[in-house]
Amino acid sequence: MSDNTMTVYGHVGTEVDFRESNAFCWAMFRVGSTPRYFDRKQGIWRDLETVWITVKATRTLAENVKASLTVGEPVVVIGRIRTHTWQDPTTRETQRRDVLEATAVCHDLNRGTTTFRRNEQPAATEATASEGEVVRAFEASQGEQAPTTGESRQPVSA
Amino acid sequence: MSDNTMTVYGHVGTEVDFRESNAFCWAMFRVGSTPRYFDRKQGIWRDLETVWITVKATRTLAENVKASLTVGEPVVVIGRIRTHTWQDPTTRETQRRDVLEATAVCHDLNRGTTTFRRNEQPAATEATASEGEVVRAFEASQGEQAPTTGESRQPVSA
Amino acid sequence: MSDNTMTVYGHVGTEVDFRESNAFCWAMFRVGSTPRYFDRKQGIWRDLETVWITVKATRTLAENVKASLTVGEPVVVIGRIRTHTWQDPTTRETQRRDVLEATAVCHDLNRGTTTFRRNEQPAATEATASEGEVVRAFEASQGEQAPTTGESRQPVSA
Amino acid sequence: MSDNTMTVYGHVGTEVDFRESNAFCWAMFRVGSTPRYFDRKQGIWRDLETVWITVKATRTLAENVKASLTVGEPVVVIGRIRTHTWQDPTTRETQRRDVLEATAVCHDLNRGTTTFRRNEQPAATEATASEGEVVRAFEASQGEQAPTTGESRQPVSA
Repeated sequence: MSDNTMTVYGHVGTEVDFRESNAFCWAMFRVGSTPRYFDRKQGIWRDLETVWITVKATRTLAENVKASLTVGEPVVVIGRIRTHTWQDPTTRETQRRDVLEATAVCHDLNRGTTTFRRNEQPAATEATASEGEVVRAFEASQGEQAPTTGESRQPVSA
Repeated sequence: MSDNTMTVYGHVGTEVDFRESNAFCWAMFRVGSTPRYFDRKQGIWRDLETVWITVKATRTLAENVKASLTVGEPVVVIGRIRTHTWQDPTTRETQRRDVLEATAVCHDLNRGTTTFRRNEQPAATEATASEGEVVRAFEASQGEQAPTTGESRQPVSA
Repeated sequence: MSDNTMTVYGHVGTEVDFRESNAFCWAMFRVGSTPRYFDRKQGIWRDLETVWITVKATRTLAENVKASLTVGEPVVVIGRIRTHTWQDPTTRETQRRDVLEATAVCHDLNRGTTTFRRNEQPAATEATASEGEVVRAFEASQGEQAPTTGESRQPVSA
Repeated sequence: MSDNTMTVYGHVGTEVDFRESNAFCWAMFRVGSTPRYFDRKQGIWRDLETVWITVKATRTLAENVKASLTVGEPVVVIGRIRTHTWQDPTTRETQRRDVLEATAVCHDLNRGTTTFRRNEQPAATEATASEGEVVRAFEASQGEQAPTTGESRQPVSA
C-alpha cells in the first residue's frame, strides 16, 4: 500500500536541534502552519488555529537544514507521517508523538529570495540510532526550552 | 500562504459517526495507516507503527462516506490538517486534537472493486455547528467505545 | 531525489483499455479535469480549460479499474508522471506522451456512493511488456475512436 | 471539485523568462525531472526518461524566482496543471501546452544550503495580461534558444 504524504507551508518555530551518532546525523524542529479562510461577510481573511508539526530530517538533509534554517523563516516541508512511541524514563508513562519525516525542506520563495550553495561532501551513511531514541532526545531538549506554543505532550495510559 | 495537505492510505478503523444539526451534517471516523519499509538484509517488508488519523467530512461527502464505508475497508483520504481545541466539561482540561478535514475520501481500487452510484439530491447548505463542538462530540462518543488502538487523548495543561 | 507526484480530480473520459501479455496486465484511460475559479465581480464560478491526462494502471489496480470505472464517473487519481517516447511505425516520427502512472485510482465520494468488494485472487506478477509498447498500443487504439476532445498528438521532429 | 496538484523534484532547465505588463509580472522556466528505479538484479539505480515541465509563477513569487534560480540548480515546485491554447500567428495552427502554475518554488535542501532574505516590498497587484498571451510569449522566446531537450511543440489539427 502506498505511503501517506504531507506538505506543510509554515514557519520555523524552534531552533533546529541537530545531533550525530557515529556516522549518522539527524535534525528536528517544529513548524507552525496557520491556515486561513476567507470570511465573505466581512470580506477579510481570518486565521484558524495554528497547527504545530514536529519535523525530522536525516543525513545530508539534516546538515543542510541545520545550516540554512533560522527561527521565523517561511518554509515548505514535504514528508511522511510516522508515529513514534517511547517510555518516559522518569514518569514511566508511554509517550506517543507523530513526526513528519521530511523528504524535502525548503525556504518558501513566495516570501523572499534564496541564494543556493551546492554541497560538496558526500551524504552520511547508514542509520545507527533507533527511531524512538531520536524523538525522545528531541522531546527532552524541548522540555528545557519553554515550547513556542501551548502544544501538549501526549501522555498515553500504559 | 498555501494550505497544508495530506494524503493517507489506510483502512477504516472505526464506525463512521454521522451527525446532523439544522441543515448541516458531518461525519467522523478514524483511519489506520501502517507504513512499511523493505528490509534488504532479510529481503522482506516490515511494518512500522500504525499512524491513526481522525478524519472529518462534511455535507454531501459526509453523507456518502456514511453510506459507503465499513470498518476494515481500504481507503484513500485527501485533506487538510486542522487543530481543534475544546474545554472538557468534566475535567476542565483543555483538549487538543489534530483532524484531517477531508476534501476527498475513496475506496482504494488497489484492493478491490467499487460500484459507483451518483447522488441525486443537492448538497447540504451552510454550516451551523461550530468546529470545536463537532470534534468534542466525536471524541465523547469514542470514549464510550474502547478505541481500536491505544491512541492517547491529549490533555493540555491550561 | 524524490519522485514527482500528481493528484487529479476529474471524470473518466474514455473507455478503460485493458490488455494482457503473459502474466502481466495493464489498463489505460483518459481523465478530464476541469479547474474552476471564483469570479468575484460576477459572483459565480467559472470553468478553465479542461486538462486531459492519460492514466496507466498495472496488475491488480488495472483489473479493478477495468471492472469498476465507467465513462463519465468522477474519479480521483494519484500517481507519478512518466514520459514515454516511441517510433510511429507508419510515419517514422518520434512520438512523445506524458502518462500518469497511477498508484491509486478511486471513485470520488463527493459525488456519489460506492459499494466495495474486496479482491480474492492474488496480484499479477512481473512485467513483460516494455513501457513504450504499452503506451503505443493505447495511442493506436485511441486513433480508431475519435478522441473525446481536440487533444493533439505530439509529433516530435526527429 | 478539488483542483489537481503536482509536486515536481528536478533541476532548473532554462533561464527564468521574466516579464512585466502594467503592474503585473510573471516568470516562466522549464524544470527537468528524471525519475529513477532500483534495478534489483543489477543492484543499481537506473534513470527513466526525463520529464520536462513548463512552470509559471506570478507576482511576488515570479520576482523571487527570477532573483533566486540559476540553470542547473535543484528545485522543488508545487502547483496546479493548467492547459493553455493559442493560435500561432505565423502557421495559423492551434497550439496547446500544459503548464504547472506554481503555488511554491524552492531550492531543494537535499542538495545544498540556502541563505534566505525576506522581501520588503509588497506584492504586485491584479493581473492584466491574458493567460494564453503569457504562455505564447514564453514559447516564442524558447523558439529562439534551442530547447534543452527534444521536447516537441504540440500542433493540434484545427
